[in-house]
Amino acid sequence: MGISPKQFEQLQSRVRGAARRSSPSTPEVAPTAPRSHEIILGVDPSLRGTGYGVIRAAKPQPATLAHGTIACPTDWERSRCLAKIHATLREVIRAHQPTVCIVEGLFFAQNLQTAIIMGEARGAALVAMAEAGLEIFEVAPRKVKQAIVGYGAAQKLAVAKMVQRMLQLAELPKPDAADALALALTHAQTAGRYSVEGPKRV
Amino acid sequence: MGISPKQFEQLQSRVRGAARRSSPSTPEVAPTAPRSHEIILGVDPSLRGTGYGVIRAAKPQPATLAHGTIACPTDWERSRCLAKIHATLREVIRAHQPTVCIVEGLFFAQNLQTAIIMGEARGAALVAMAEAGLEIFEVAPRKVKQAIVGYGAAQKLAVAKMVQRMLQLAELPKPDAADALALALTHAQTAGRYSVEGPKRV
Repeated sequence: MGISPKQFEQLQSRVRGAARRSSPSTPEVAPTAPRSHEIILGVDPSLRGTGYGVIRAAKPQPATLAHGTIACPTDWERSRCLAKIHATLREVIRAHQPTVCIVEGLFFAQNLQTAIIMGEARGAALVAMAEAGLEIFEVAPRKVKQAIVGYGAAQKLAVAKMVQRMLQLAELPKPDAADALALALTHAQTAGRYSVEGPKRV
Repeated sequence: MGISPKQFEQLQSRVRGAARRSSPSTPEVAPTAPRSHEIILGVDPSLRGTGYGVIRAAKPQPATLAHGTIACPTDWERSRCLAKIHATLREVIRAHQPTVCIVEGLFFAQNLQTAIIMGEARGAALVAMAEAGLEIFEVAPRKVKQAIVGYGAAQKLAVAKMVQRMLQLAELPKPDAADALALALTHAQTAGRYSVEGPKRV
C-alpha cells in the first residue's frame, strides 16, 4: 500500500468530507475514526459451520479479500471442531492481516446446552483474534440486517443477495460466509458515522 | 517412573483385584485400561478464574505436578481473558505433557448470556487441549463430588479438603484449583473401573 503522506491527508479529508455530507451532525472527530484502508474480518461462529469474510473498506466500494465456511462434519468431536475454527481463523488473519474483527453478537439460543456449544465456538474464534492483538467488536444480528437490507428481520437470502451486490461477487455467497461478510460490511458502513450506541468491544 | 514389566503386571492385577472387590460384576478387561503412569490435566473453565490441576496417577497415591487459577481482572475485555486461558493452558500442557484432559462437564447456568460466556471460556480451554492432540473427557460436577467426597451435593470446601488429603498438599488448594484437581483425581479413580456410563468424550 505505497501511499505518500500527502495522499493520505487528501484521503483523510475526503473521508471526513463524505462523513459530513452523509450525516450533518457528525462531529469533526468521530469516536471511531474512519479508516479507508481498513481491513475488516467478520466472523459468524458456529460449531459445524463458522462463516468468515475479509473485506478492504476501499472507496468507492469495498473489496472482498476472502470468504468461506469452516465446515466440521457432525461425527467430529467438539474439541476437534474448535481446534479447526481456531487454526483456520489464525491462518486467515495471518494471510490477510485485518486491523479489526467483528463477531456476531447477542443472539438467542434455544436452550442452555445450545448456548454453551455456541459459546465454545465463539471462544475458539475469539482466541484466534485476541492472540493476534486485534480489536474485536460485537454486532447484533438485527443491526447487521438493518444496516445491510434496511430491515432488522430480513431473511438470510435477502442478506446474501445484498452482500453479493455490495461486493459485486460473481456468485451468491454461501449463507454462513454471507453473514460474515455482512458483519464486515456493517462495520465498514458504521465506523465512519457518529453513533450514540457505538459498537460493543468484546 | 522406572517400573519393570513384572511390577507393572503386579500393579495391574492389584488394580483389577481392587475393582473386583468394589464391584463384583466388573469384567477382566475394563473398557478404559488402567494406566498407572498416566498424567492427567483437570480443568474447570470460567472466564475470570479457570482452575487447572495436573496429577500423575502414581501408586500408592497420586502426585501433584501443578495446580493454579488463571485469574483475569473484571476490567479485562472478554477476549483478553480467553487468550490468557488458552495461552496458560498451552504452557501447562507443554510443561507437564499430560496424556489425558478432564473438563468439568454439564452444569447449570443462570441464563443464556451466562451460558454463552461460560461456553466461551470452555472453548478457549478446549482449543489448547485439542491442538495438543490430547484425549478430552467431560465429567459432571455431581459425579466429581460423588467420587471425591462420596456425596453428589457436597460443598466446595469439603471437596477442597478431601483433595488436600488425597494429594497430601501442605495447604488447602484454592477453590478453582481444588475443583480442577478433583476432576483429575476422579479420572484417576474411575479410569480403571468398569462403568456402564463411561466418561463422555468431547
